[in-house]
Amino acid sequence: MDIEQFRKAGYQAIDRICDYYYSLQNKPVASQVEPGYLRKALPESAPENGEDFQIIADDYQKFIVPGLTHWQHPSFFAYFPTACTFEGILGELYATSASNPGFNWSASPACTELEAVVTDWAAKLLGLDPAFYNSTETGGGVIQTTASDSVLIATVAARARYLSKHPSARIEELVIYTTTQTHSLGKKAGLVLGLAVRALEVEGFGENGEGFGLTGERLSRAIEEDLDMGRRPFVLIATVGSTSSGAVDYLADIGQTLAAYPSESIWLHVDAAWAGVSMACPEYREPCQLSAVNNYADSYCTNFHKWGLINFDSSFMWVRHRQNLINALDITPEFLRTKHGDAGTVIDYRNWHLGLGRRFRSLKAWFVFRSYGVQGFQKYIRDTVHLNEFFAKLITDSAQFTLVVPPFLALTVFRLVPPSIAPKNSNGNKDTPNGVDNEKINALNRKFYARLSARTDIALTQTDLNGTFCIRLAVGAARTSEEDIKRAYDILCEEADLVLR
Amino acid sequence: MDIEQFRKAGYQAIDRICDYYYSLQNKPVASQVEPGYLRKALPESAPENGEDFQIIADDYQKFIVPGLTHWQHPSFFAYFPTACTFEGILGELYATSASNPGFNWSASPACTELEAVVTDWAAKLLGLDPAFYNSTETGGGVIQTTASDSVLIATVAARARYLSKHPSARIEELVIYTTTQTHSLGKKAGLVLGLAVRALEVEGFGENGEGFGLTGERLSRAIEEDLDMGRRPFVLIATVGSTSSGAVDYLADIGQTLAAYPSESIWLHVDAAWAGVSMACPEYREPCQLSAVNNYADSYCTNFHKWGLINFDSSFMWVRHRQNLINALDITPEFLRTKHGDAGTVIDYRNWHLGLGRRFRSLKAWFVFRSYGVQGFQKYIRDTVHLNEFFAKLITDSAQFTLVVPPFLALTVFRLVPPSIAPKNSNGNKDTPNGVDNEKINALNRKFYARLSARTDIALTQTDLNGTFCIRLAVGAARTSEEDIKRAYDILCEEADLVLR
Repeated sequence: MDIEQFRKAGYQAIDRICDYYYSLQNKPVASQVEPGYLRKALPESAPENGEDFQIIADDYQKFIVPGLTHWQHPSFFAYFPTACTFEGILGELYATSASNPGFNWSASPACTELEAVVTDWAAKLLGLDPAFYNSTETGGGVIQTTASDSVLIATVAARARYLSKHPSARIEELVIYTTTQTHSLGKKAGLVLGLAVRALEVEGFGENGEGFGLTGERLSRAIEEDLDMGRRPFVLIATVGSTSSGAVDYLADIGQTLAAYPSESIWLHVDAAWAGVSMACPEYREPCQLSAVNNYADSYCTNFHKWGLINFDSSFMWVRHRQNLINALDITPEFLRTKHGDAGTVIDYRNWHLGLGRRFRSLKAWFVFRSYGVQGFQKYIRDTVHLNEFFAKLITDSAQFTLVVPPFLALTVFRLVPPSIAPKNSNGNKDTPNGVDNEKINALNRKFYARLSARTDIALTQTDLNGTFCIRLAVGAARTSEEDIKRAYDILCEEADLVLR
Repeated sequence: MDIEQFRKAGYQAIDRICDYYYSLQNKPVASQVEPGYLRKALPESAPENGEDFQIIADDYQKFIVPGLTHWQHPSFFAYFPTACTFEGILGELYATSASNPGFNWSASPACTELEAVVTDWAAKLLGLDPAFYNSTETGGGVIQTTASDSVLIATVAARARYLSKHPSARIEELVIYTTTQTHSLGKKAGLVLGLAVRALEVEGFGENGEGFGLTGERLSRAIEEDLDMGRRPFVLIATVGSTSSGAVDYLADIGQTLAAYPSESIWLHVDAAWAGVSMACPEYREPCQLSAVNNYADSYCTNFHKWGLINFDSSFMWVRHRQNLINALDITPEFLRTKHGDAGTVIDYRNWHLGLGRRFRSLKAWFVFRSYGVQGFQKYIRDTVHLNEFFAKLITDSAQFTLVVPPFLALTVFRLVPPSIAPKNSNGNKDTPNGVDNEKINALNRKFYARLSARTDIALTQTDLNGTFCIRLAVGAARTSEEDIKRAYDILCEEADLVLR
């Protein structure tokens, strides 16, 4: 393809992306294809001779688009949102057109420098302490692929720091702390790194009212137990805004507890993959435990590619002491030595992540931050929180549905409990009815969810909270309006009626 | 930005990318900016109010482009090439416009299905054994971010397989094998995973003539030594086409050696990050040890984003037994359970890589394979190899330069040894002169390289081969012509004259 053919195909791609967004709301949100649909449709091998790009572009529409789940659809409420903005698309387009991996400064200076600038911009946007700014030259920010990568890097740095202080420790003694509510990235970090993971138990909204957040007391008890047994906890992956329920660990409490074991130097990583970006709005900083993050976190992660308007991948991670990353990961063979790297005057991001090559991710962030501005970003976050409040009110006002946990930011977790089983109490919630088997309500909700997930006009996901099967609705697709929320609620009522019959 | 504003900004982006490629050869290949240039130029925080996108797009040209190292420049010969094609750009553009992470099948069926199809296409293109095809449902292919990620995944799977067979093994006893010529990803895998790495010594082109490739004999000796000492080698990261010299390990020999230790079950991962794509041409399959890969490799990796025309990131990885990945990495919390995943009828790629979320990387691969066709891909590979042969001949014909190792595919490693130190021998090479300190020649070449790297009209990199400082020239940028190679050679002569004066 030559330059003029690219111009033509490029214009067409832009036009078709416009068409996609004009027609998006009329598409089914979930794909209706069956497993193996594409293998059947495509040849078994690459063609011997090159094909005209027009045919290829048409085949994208014909074969690929029908197999996409439309995460940008206004009725997509599953998992968490995955950001997609036109500014983000343009950022990816410009970045890939120069295709230059900025693994060290001189491999492409703008890549490193812009990443250092936009992670500082983002730190300020969220209210993070200056200790996390790159401009301090002690802490700093980096853009990883996913929150899983951020957790892996934090755990690797924590392990190196721990072992440097406890050279006699055996790997088998090391323990990663998570809670039962931590995203699967915690267990996966254990599998990848070959380290034990202890998922600390947490309480829901019962008597203690801990809301699935980890308390300092539970943490302290675990540390004592483990130290007694000769085990060595060295990192805690704490969560702000869990996937299952939006739970927030008690970070101030946790920070003080960890500080009571100074010789253990347990690393505090805060995974705020979904919720963290809401700290752009001052009113959400306290619920997201900003001051404790600033006081105690060794590392902090939030995925701007979830609720933060920047196209995947954009997992922002900050560390208080960059030297911990470099100590853990630096390798400089001759072919990677450079004048500026040797002089230590520049950041070499290859020491801040798992691989060597890296994408120019900061460009789309720069485009989004500038095009929205702080106020535009805040407005978007607030609008989605308000939409979720609107949905949560529909749930609390209904006779059939009940919240399982209080809504948090843009996430509502609810289930179907018909009045015949339990009426609403004065708070608009339903008390767990005495004498009714929770399994019976779970079974009802599994049936209800199976009906919902068979539909193609809405996407929701399920979860399990300490034995309670529930349904999650996460707002955040940029095109979702109050109308879409009402429609979602109507679908819930319709399916509930059918399942109860 | 609304849809019509996007159309306008999108057309402009396409036009500006066209302008970029029309003017590329007139730009300096290496950026001339100084460390900190961008921080000085940009505001300290994101703007309070959104800015017009035209200003942002203009600022990309004004502030970012001058800070890029132009890896697509025809005079870029550093590191290894990083692929960029218009088809790859269009693939990224379409993929990011739908922004849908296909971490399991139902999260977006087309993402999983197309990845399974194009990794099979690529396996056939390269001549890999059907055992590595997804269609077998025992082996399969996946697209990782980088070769480093592929090595990490292979090592994690190898460790899990080893420990399942040797449950009494202690982590501290495990050893990753690499050679002294393995890319830094080997050492980094050790740092990340907290495992010992033993870099086996290899010989260059001296008496034994092993050409920096690992032999079975050396491997066997190492295994015996380690087993005697109670250490447990469990994975060998072998290389086809090393970064420093294009060295190729003796895989058939290695495979047979590993087979002689059946109870150890040492995993053979073949990292052909750069060279592997050349197997698209039948004539390069033997130099790349295809039949040994097919007979012995547990996993195989080649980066189509290097020399393979598909934009970064496109690290293709194949495994002979997918169950090894799944056994090592599967976690299925409730919120990730799906009908098809539970039934086992689909691939859930989240178990084949480190994180959870993943980009829709297969689309750009599909575009490139179809637009080039097998023959177009082969032609591109052959053309770059021929350009390198042309360059290598200029080196062997010159009185001043000498090859340090035989050229391999599209890589030449050479150095400056003026006739006053050593004349050419009958092969057109220079014998290491008796009585001349190698350090003296190294010092001369360091000076020579410093001059070259100060220039902005050519990019080359340095390396060190068992104490010999040398210069690498890697061909592969899609726009490089014979004229550019001649110009590169003229620059070398000019700087050699200056440094020798």
